[in-house]
Order: sequence, then structure tokens, then C-alpha cells
Amino acid sequence: MDTAAATLPDLAAIRAAAARIAGRARRTPMLTSRSLDALAGCQLFFKCETLQRVGAFKFRGASNAVWSLSDAEAARGVVTQSSGNHGAAIALACRERGIRATVVVPRSAPKIKLAAIAAFGADIVPCEVAQADRDRVTAQVLADTGGNLIHPYNDGRVIAGQATATLELMEQVPDLEVVIAPVSGGGLLSGACLAGHGLDPRLQLYGAEPAGAADAHDGLAAGERITGRTADTICDGLRAELGTLTFPVLRQHLAGVLVVDDDATVAAMRLVFDRLKLVVEPSAAIVLAAVLQDPGRFAGRRVGLVLSGGNVDLDTLPWRPAHA
Amino acid sequence: MDTAAATLPDLAAIRAAAARIAGRARRTPMLTSRSLDALAGCQLFFKCETLQRVGAFKFRGASNAVWSLSDAEAARGVVTQSSGNHGAAIALACRERGIRATVVVPRSAPKIKLAAIAAFGADIVPCEVAQADRDRVTAQVLADTGGNLIHPYNDGRVIAGQATATLELMEQVPDLEVVIAPVSGGGLLSGACLAGHGLDPRLQLYGAEPAGAADAHDGLAAGERITGRTADTICDGLRAELGTLTFPVLRQHLAGVLVVDDDATVAAMRLVFDRLKLVVEPSAAIVLAAVLQDPGRFAGRRVGLVLSGGNVDLDTLPWRPAHA
Repeated sequence: MDTAAATLPDLAAIRAAAARIAGRARRTPMLTSRSLDALAGCQLFFKCETLQRVGAFKFRGASNAVWSLSDAEAARGVVTQSSGNHGAAIALACRERGIRATVVVPRSAPKIKLAAIAAFGADIVPCEVAQADRDRVTAQVLADTGGNLIHPYNDGRVIAGQATATLELMEQVPDLEVVIAPVSGGGLLSGACLAGHGLDPRLQLYGAEPAGAADAHDGLAAGERITGRTADTICDGLRAELGTLTFPVLRQHLAGVLVVDDDATVAAMRLVFDRLKLVVEPSAAIVLAAVLQDPGRFAGRRVGLVLSGGNVDLDTLPWRPAHA
Repeated sequence: MDTAAATLPDLAAIRAAAARIAGRARRTPMLTSRSLDALAGCQLFFKCETLQRVGAFKFRGASNAVWSLSDAEAARGVVTQSSGNHGAAIALACRERGIRATVVVPRSAPKIKLAAIAAFGADIVPCEVAQADRDRVTAQVLADTGGNLIHPYNDGRVIAGQATATLELMEQVPDLEVVIAPVSGGGLLSGACLAGHGLDPRLQLYGAEPAGAADAHDGLAAGERITGRTADTICDGLRAELGTLTFPVLRQHLAGVLVVDDDATVAAMRLVFDRLKLVVEPSAAIVLAAVLQDPGRFAGRRVGLVLSGGNVDLDTLPWRPAHA
């Protein structure tokens, strides 16, 4: 791993990432909803990464990492592993830089996400779902191609890119008191921590995590990173485990990890469709569910929610009545 | 009808409306999609009135009209007729001004729209679907209450409010060449004409209208307003007929009315969900369908599309497979 990949970004590095991806990634809108505020009993500020290119925040980190490569590095191409959104983001960023991308994809990945990776011209290499197999296949592809690894979250360049979402949100919302982001591998959330506390040490940062993939919650409680579990959740973007770079950031900065049942996430997803008129995936809607299941915790406060992505199969929306 | 209601707004009146509703209605985002541009063969600029308060542009016109009333007028309350979004918009605007609203609603109106009107505290009076019955019941309510009529589209204050959507879009997109908006009663579209040609006489303005409710297309072709037809379309917001105020505006300013089959509208609706990550109703998606069915007409041009609203029943999305 090279230095930039192994180094956690400070606020200056996050600002540099914001400048590097400006004009490539979108500055996404921040939306509010008085009816959702009334339900939640606090002021909610939704950062709409659903409206980011490729439909997810992942394009921020992928763009920053791909455009951080020297020309000599870039010529060897990029390799990554991803259950979906990061793979599509790397594929698009590489296409725009004119270099080769190879994405190692677990066989369980949603078709809509696979299709996006392929549509952006990346080579797809299948692997099994378990993290160990993802890592083995990725190492093999790296050895075969000589390409640059851009890990989906355990990479300082990626974390810096994801951090720009929170940087923007704090510019869009003065006096934000709380930020909640989904946690999977921890790239988005550790970026939120570094940007958030870089700008305002009083900010409270929370992760939202599915009950069926609560390795971050359990690992932070135990004081050591948990690996090797099998996730069971509708949130297909939240099945990874924390990385060696992201775990210590969360340990230092987080106020807590809010564990959410899938049923609550599905109900929140429908609320986002209905009230915000945004298409979100379950892995994004979980942040609203985290507030609604415990409104007393946030009563009266100014709460930023990172809606991380909107890539969902519209034929299988989870609230469709089974008997229809 | 009082003077402001009967007078078509010029650019100064539209700017005054923008100032009057600032801080009440939202300045909605403009979004783009490279994948939709590639499909359409032109540059599309989506004005996201789906993200307007009450989920539709109607809140602009309703707010402008309600806040244009003198205190003495306001004290007598407001009466309107609406198949849905305008009714909800009037209800909310009146609640915010602290005055009474009565909404005459045809029995065919979607439940989601009725629920919104009721939730904002308006009185609901049912009527039959035919325009003549809507008018009869509305006149009766006006006589009973002494309230102020705010017609959903045949009202200069409403038209001025709706026009602010196009005013904003032209500020957000330099050198726009075409604007397409849905046409029903013509409030949104005549507002687009007056704002659009007020700012740039070279702008080309089109209406998009369902084949099953093509009275605007047919009436403009015939040179006289068509009334009394029964509409048959999935676009529940596009079943009204042009008004005496809006017909001459469209006759003077429009480049054409693009007639769209419901199947094409449903396909476009799904594309908006999938590519823009926005929840839209059929009456909004029709503008994208109008481009995609005839891409040669707009090839290479800069085309603004007004996505008019996002109030759709999420349990009955029209592309759900019937056998699921």
C-alpha cells in the first residue's frame, strides 16, 4: 500500500480532495422535510448522495483515489473489490481518466449494481461472498495485472473523498449538532468523523448499522475489530466489516453506533420515497430509521443524515405486498 | 373575479411573485443525468418540482395567490377546486396564513392527494368528475362561504406563481433553448411561456399532453378552446381543460404540444426513478417521454424539463408486474 492510501486524511487533505473532485463528483443538494421533522421531533438535514453520480457517495472516494494516481501509476490500471456501488464508481472514474478498471465482485451482488459496473466498461471478476475469498481473488488479480489497489474503504484517498460529503453538508447547514451515516467498512463514517471533528469538535457522530451485520457496534464495544462474520440484512451495501484504518477512527470519534432492524429500515425507506420524493436503497434509509426508533436521543437537535445511495431494484421494492 | 386574478402577469409581476413566495416555497434543485442525455441525444435540465413543498409546483401558485390577498379578503377564507396537488397546496398555504380553506374535489382524486389536503386542515367538499359539476359545486361553496376563489390555473396570481419555476430554471441553466412542461389547465405552461419569453424571446416552449386528454393539442390546432371532454389517462394531474386566461397565452407563445401515450409516460417514469433517483408522478414524467419519443426534434439542444410533481401511490407503481 502506498503512502496516500495508508494515511488518514486531515482536514487539509479532505479539502484537497474536494478540490480534486470538483467538477467530477456532484455537489449534492441538502433537503429538508417538515413532516419528517414532526415525526422525528428534531430538525433533519438530508445530504442527498442518492443524487451523486452513479447514485451513491462512493463516486467521491473513487474519483479522489483515481485522480490521485500519477500518470505512471494510472497507466497500470486500477483493481478493486466491491459489492456494487464502489465498483461502479471506480469503473466510471477510470473510464473518465481513460484507464483500465478490474472489479472483484461477490456473487451475491445485486444485478442492478453489476449492470452499472459493466456499463461503465470495467472488467468484472466474480468471487465468493466471504471476505477472505474477496481478498484472495483481489490479490490474485493485482498480481496478474500489476494494477493499483483502491480498496473500497480501507484507503486514505477513498476516506478523504467520502469525507467531502460531510464537508459539504456542514457548509450547507450551519450549526449542525449531530451527523449520522451508515456504517459498513467505515469509509463514509470515518470520513464524516475526520471532516466533522476537523470543522467542529463538538459535533456528535453516530453510525447506523443493521442488526444483522452489527460488527462495528459489537467490535467498538469490545474494543477490537470483529472479522469473519456472515451478514444477514436487506442492506446490501452494509455487509462489509471495518478495516484496519477505519476502526481506530471510529473508536476515537464516534458517539455511538445505532443498531437498526431491517423492518424499521424498510419503513424508513418508504417514508423517504413518500415525503422526500427520493429513491433510496435500504443501506441509505437506515439513518432515518435510526432516528425514528429513538427520537428522545435527538429531541430538538439539528441532525444531519447522509442518504448514501439510491441504487435499488425497482421491481422488488421491499414493501410490495407479497400477495399482490 | 378581481383584477389580479383576471390579469396575466408580465415579467415584473412574476418577479414580484418570486419575492412574495421566497422563504415559503422552495427554490428547487435542477438536476442533470448524463445517461438520460445519452438516451435523448440532447442536454436535459430537470427542474425538480417534485421536491417542492407538498411535492408539486402547485405550491408556488397557491402561495402567491394566498399571500396576495389583503387581510380583509383573507379573513373570508379561500375556496378552490382541485384533483389533488393544487388543493393540498392551497390547504398548506392557508394554514400558514392562518385562514380557512375549502377544497372542492372530484370523487376520482387519488387517495394520497385527498389525504394531503385533509392533513393540512382544509375542508373537503366532494363533486363529480365532469368540469361542469366541479364548477357548479365550487360556485355553491363560494356563495355559502363568501370566500375568495383561487382557481387552480385560470387565475393570474396562480399563473405568476407557477411561472417562478421557469424563472428559476432559466437562472439555473444559462442559454436554455427549449422548455417543456406538462399541460392540463395550462397554469404551469402559460407561466413558463410568460417567464420564458419575458427573459428570452428565442426560447422554444412546448407542452406535453396525454393522448387520452389532448384537448390542448386539439384546441390549439383548431384555434378554439375545447371543453367538456372526458379524459382517459394515467396522468391524474393532466385531466383538466384549458382556461379562458391560459388558452390565448399558449396560442401566442407555444412552439407545439407533444402528445404522449400513457405507455411511454410509464416507461419514462421508471427511467426518472432509476436514473435521477426521483419519485415522480406520471403527470411529471410525461415531459421526458415527450423528448424520448421524438429525439430528432431536440437533437443537440439544451432542453429544460419541468418535473411537475411526485405525489404517487407507492403501492400501485404502474410498472408492477400484474402477475407478481
